[in-house]
Amino acid sequence: MSTARVNALMAQMTTEEKIGQLIQLSADFFQNGQAEITGPMQDKNLTLDIVYSAGSVLGISGAEKVKNIQKDFIEHNRLHIPLLFMADVVHGYQTIYPIPLGLGATFNPELVRQTSEVAARESAAGGIHVTFAPMVDLVRDPRWGRVMESTGEDPYLNSVLAKASVDGYQGNLPLDKEHIAACVKHFAAYGAPEAGREYNTVDLSEWRFREQYLPAYAAAIEAQAMLVMTSFNTLFGVPATVNQHLMRDILRDELNFNGVLISDWDAIAEVMSHGVAADLAKAADLALTAGVDIDMMSFAYAKYLEKASKIDEKTLNLINEAAARVLELKEKLGLFEDPYRGLDVNVEAKEVYSSANLAVAQYAAEESIVLLKNEADILPLQKSMKLALVGPVVTSNDLLGSWSWQGERREKETLAQVFDKNFENIQVEAGCNYHSSDSILEQQAVAAAEKQDVIVAFIGLPSSESGEATSKTDINVPKEQLALLEKLVTLNKPIISVVVTGRPLDLRRVSELSDAVVVAWFPGSKGAVAIENILDGTVSPSGKLPMTFPRNIGQVPIYYNSYRTGRPITNTPEDDVNKYQSKYLDCDNSPLYSFGFGLSYAKLGIKSVDIINDNVNDEQPLVLEVTVINESNFSAKNTLQCYTHQLTGETVRPVKELKQFKKLTFAANSEQKIQITIAKDLLSNVHTNLNCYVDSGKYEVMVGFDSDNVITKSFKVE
Amino acid sequence: MSTARVNALMAQMTTEEKIGQLIQLSADFFQNGQAEITGPMQDKNLTLDIVYSAGSVLGISGAEKVKNIQKDFIEHNRLHIPLLFMADVVHGYQTIYPIPLGLGATFNPELVRQTSEVAARESAAGGIHVTFAPMVDLVRDPRWGRVMESTGEDPYLNSVLAKASVDGYQGNLPLDKEHIAACVKHFAAYGAPEAGREYNTVDLSEWRFREQYLPAYAAAIEAQAMLVMTSFNTLFGVPATVNQHLMRDILRDELNFNGVLISDWDAIAEVMSHGVAADLAKAADLALTAGVDIDMMSFAYAKYLEKASKIDEKTLNLINEAAARVLELKEKLGLFEDPYRGLDVNVEAKEVYSSANLAVAQYAAEESIVLLKNEADILPLQKSMKLALVGPVVTSNDLLGSWSWQGERREKETLAQVFDKNFENIQVEAGCNYHSSDSILEQQAVAAAEKQDVIVAFIGLPSSESGEATSKTDINVPKEQLALLEKLVTLNKPIISVVVTGRPLDLRRVSELSDAVVVAWFPGSKGAVAIENILDGTVSPSGKLPMTFPRNIGQVPIYYNSYRTGRPITNTPEDDVNKYQSKYLDCDNSPLYSFGFGLSYAKLGIKSVDIINDNVNDEQPLVLEVTVINESNFSAKNTLQCYTHQLTGETVRPVKELKQFKKLTFAANSEQKIQITIAKDLLSNVHTNLNCYVDSGKYEVMVGFDSDNVITKSFKVE
Repeated sequence: MSTARVNALMAQMTTEEKIGQLIQLSADFFQNGQAEITGPMQDKNLTLDIVYSAGSVLGISGAEKVKNIQKDFIEHNRLHIPLLFMADVVHGYQTIYPIPLGLGATFNPELVRQTSEVAARESAAGGIHVTFAPMVDLVRDPRWGRVMESTGEDPYLNSVLAKASVDGYQGNLPLDKEHIAACVKHFAAYGAPEAGREYNTVDLSEWRFREQYLPAYAAAIEAQAMLVMTSFNTLFGVPATVNQHLMRDILRDELNFNGVLISDWDAIAEVMSHGVAADLAKAADLALTAGVDIDMMSFAYAKYLEKASKIDEKTLNLINEAAARVLELKEKLGLFEDPYRGLDVNVEAKEVYSSANLAVAQYAAEESIVLLKNEADILPLQKSMKLALVGPVVTSNDLLGSWSWQGERREKETLAQVFDKNFENIQVEAGCNYHSSDSILEQQAVAAAEKQDVIVAFIGLPSSESGEATSKTDINVPKEQLALLEKLVTLNKPIISVVVTGRPLDLRRVSELSDAVVVAWFPGSKGAVAIENILDGTVSPSGKLPMTFPRNIGQVPIYYNSYRTGRPITNTPEDDVNKYQSKYLDCDNSPLYSFGFGLSYAKLGIKSVDIINDNVNDEQPLVLEVTVINESNFSAKNTLQCYTHQLTGETVRPVKELKQFKKLTFAANSEQKIQITIAKDLLSNVHTNLNCYVDSGKYEVMVGFDSDNVITKSFKVE
Repeated sequence: MSTARVNALMAQMTTEEKIGQLIQLSADFFQNGQAEITGPMQDKNLTLDIVYSAGSVLGISGAEKVKNIQKDFIEHNRLHIPLLFMADVVHGYQTIYPIPLGLGATFNPELVRQTSEVAARESAAGGIHVTFAPMVDLVRDPRWGRVMESTGEDPYLNSVLAKASVDGYQGNLPLDKEHIAACVKHFAAYGAPEAGREYNTVDLSEWRFREQYLPAYAAAIEAQAMLVMTSFNTLFGVPATVNQHLMRDILRDELNFNGVLISDWDAIAEVMSHGVAADLAKAADLALTAGVDIDMMSFAYAKYLEKASKIDEKTLNLINEAAARVLELKEKLGLFEDPYRGLDVNVEAKEVYSSANLAVAQYAAEESIVLLKNEADILPLQKSMKLALVGPVVTSNDLLGSWSWQGERREKETLAQVFDKNFENIQVEAGCNYHSSDSILEQQAVAAAEKQDVIVAFIGLPSSESGEATSKTDINVPKEQLALLEKLVTLNKPIISVVVTGRPLDLRRVSELSDAVVVAWFPGSKGAVAIENILDGTVSPSGKLPMTFPRNIGQVPIYYNSYRTGRPITNTPEDDVNKYQSKYLDCDNSPLYSFGFGLSYAKLGIKSVDIINDNVNDEQPLVLEVTVINESNFSAKNTLQCYTHQLTGETVRPVKELKQFKKLTFAANSEQKIQITIAKDLLSNVHTNLNCYVDSGKYEVMVGFDSDNVITKSFKVE
């Protein structure tokens, strides 16, 4: 596959130089505009020569800084091969969008594409070539902190948004200098750690893996993502990073991925901790054999440098294969023409955190916010209302969420500041801290609330309790915050609870105590403005839950697209007398809030669902016409969702599966016809032989504004 | 494989009669000593002719009753083929032993063999031929109610006890009339329902299935269990009952099982609910093709009767194969010689609930009770102590546990009655109900406790919250019972909490509030006596947890033999500063009480562990010599446990795996040397190609009285 230029370069390179391309170093090695080895890095046994032969670096950004390091690097590198600069641009570079779970809630692929495109523009100007995004890991366990970095629990939604994000980062290929390469992560199934405990064992049948976990990675690869990152977990008993079946059979051979496969941080060395390699050299062999091209900071591939002259032919071939892929990526990025591609201090100054970019951030935040409850239409708030703003988040600047290292530099408005601009009479009293009560604070909040019409409680968790390595066994809102609500509810005033969170929480008590409940996720740079715009009705909420909110932690994992069981509940009176059903003694099977759920200020209803073509074949997709009425004075966006169910399969089928969604604006007091098309191949399923194809037979299609309240129709596949 | 007799019989049988052998009916069809079709059974479209051609019946017992039904049946059956009588004799027939989870806690295979043998004798006298036991499903989720019927979370312990139980039921083969056939259940992996919800999806990689779930079934089959029961769940996407890979490739071909495979209740029809068969006829075809010989109460195989003359040759061959297996089982049971084998009204009267059998029940109960905490050696109690006996269990008769239908007939002593006989001064006041508080009851309990020296609280859950179809999302002790403890603790008197439960509970608060904590499971017919004997020191506790007790539901699943991860905690100060480890923000990784844990009244210590042979090969096992000292005046039983760990494997290995255990009596103030032998083949592991064999290399062996506190030594396998 290699181009003439890469081949020519490879021909000039020593084995050591080829190995160098496979090594990724952290920013620690490039301080003060040049390579250096200081601090704990001295223990890694690298020489400056080795550092100057490295293929890539992660975590450095800023046009000036990158330019200096690249210049110095090229001067010192024998063949003047430029360094690749990679970084975690996860939900924005300096302009921060909602966390990916919030982006999932937008159900808006075009918006996700835009956020990624803007992030690419900002970071390209800052000298970054590759972002470690999107993360497309399917997630179903709110105990896992890193659910914040996923778009949720659905294979189809994740697939659509994975493609949108890759398209946004990379733009139209070939890459131009305003776009960067996307690195899909984490291959594979990192999102299913046992007991929700970070880095824990993942175990799935290969059948289920292919049904539910593989599709989003496949979609990103089909969208031509240039890199893939390995995951920390095991799968089928073998750490993903050295899993030949996963990386060779599935990723390379089946998905035809011929881009760069990079390990996660230290993941090659960690197979020693897994007990799958006895030493670093063996770990390197396993990873290289599995097809991992770049070793991120485990120094396993550096082991080959020690014996470069004695490497056997098979290993040399693997090194050549990997080095060529890294060089091809550099070529695709245009680094051989311009090692400073994209970076520009002036563009950076103009582009980064621009008002245009912030507008996208605000738009994304507004679309991500989910309204879960709105008793007696207490929302939207009238600007004339006197508000008591309480809760630990009200004066906090902690609205960006994890993975916003560059965003933290920027000044942001607090919720209190934004509401102060928009309402005439507000009282701001936190009432408690995130995790501690304070009787003085509480008294002040009660006193303030007594004077006002409506209480708005900004509750939730700090961003430090969300993201990588933040697993929790308890998903309740902290008891000190609930205690504040319990106190305030005695005042008999309306309470609006706005929940800032990176994961589904047990909101039973919050919901009982509140007239309205809003989930704001971590909404990013313009989060405070977006929240205010939703609450005052400037924008009708349109976010939909991308992950199920359980009634309690004991229901986990709970998700909408569960497989059928042999003894299902029937939702009839039979359930009261038949003990022998798949259910709990002490809790409903249903979640507190389902996947796809989210209220609107508009009163939308589905008047009819007509099947235009109920006989689906290779030429003829399923075509529906849905008539939606808006019986309100609100013009609002909402997401029409289409689920299917295959009545009989060779394997057990999910009770429903999202196959199409459309986010549309519904004008006030209008009636609108929407045509929905589902191609036959979207109905494919994985069979016991692990092949994926569509079965003939009877199906159902379900249409609604969430996954629960649907109108069901039948159709056939020929 | 068929014998001449079976072949001769088969030659005389019509297709309809062969199909009849595959049909199992419930007791409803045989009332008043003869076949009849009444009540809801009239909907099943069976004729009396069909009922009289059925192969087996479940749930009928009692010598007189069985005799009458069998006599009538043989008279009506054209070829006089006797009926097979099967029943759920799970932990005793009328003499009830502890629930299987309690039997697991005994770590005593010989005792388990004895209990099964006694149960076989009692039920054989009552006319039963086959018991639906043992259940050997590996369990790790306390939400699942049916964990009570398993011996726990460990593949090795389950395997050893599976064999012991089969040996007990079946005795030395060929079967004599005091023994009955064992039916191992539930094949396979029923114990891993997602979210702990009964009958829910099970999903495991085949690698993990073979590593951890398959061994106990394999052990029972190797012990020549005559039947296997299918499980309700799916595995690898297909309901077990129609899963050809599971039943044909693994059960029949690999494990060489040639006995009778029976469906669980209605399980064949339920593949329609699973959506894997569109109608009952198709469900029957799938099950028959998978090799299911007997259809328990789904009436799917009865569908073949409607088209008996038109059945194709392939199906006929399958029917012949299945019918022959059922007839072979009848032959093995000696039913052709004596259709009334074993049943005897006089033997029944003498054998059932005999004092000898009750002695075994008491012995088993005593060995099953686990002492989890014993602050300041508050236990054993002195008989001179004045006791306040409180808690809802104290006056309850609910100590048998689920699956004790015949045991319920028998009169049993309550805890209050037994303590009254053994202590001079007791006050009995429940203080609350299982799930409700009562201020009068509470006041009475407090008043009683004020007068006494020590409070013994009998707390826990009723048996109706344990067993099949009793999944729970909450594993806390009911808050009303905790409230009683909170009240009593203010009296500043010692509190002993005795917990009656069929599953691991969150005992954090109970443990904090109590000086001593005892887990009694559901201890069976002699449970109250056994508990009293443990508390007063007549017997030192020797039970060991067969399932991990979590700190909270958020840790689930949690079990001792977890796989290694790439970022383990180190149990060093590094853990305080390194966020990026496999752990939770809000809870330790460790459980509240580990697998294998259980205290003794004796003070036992391991003085030394010497490896006699540290180089293991095909001829030479690992041999250890362990020196145990007892520095107390108590002579006590305890279980020495041996775990191994393979340092490097092709796949990730568990942090430790039980490979041997010895329950021994340690005399007071003694020193004892124990030799432990672990054969090489016990060290085998499943590889990525799904083959199971032993790897050469470095291993560790860990010896202790629980899975946590161990002495570790190294050895090699050649």
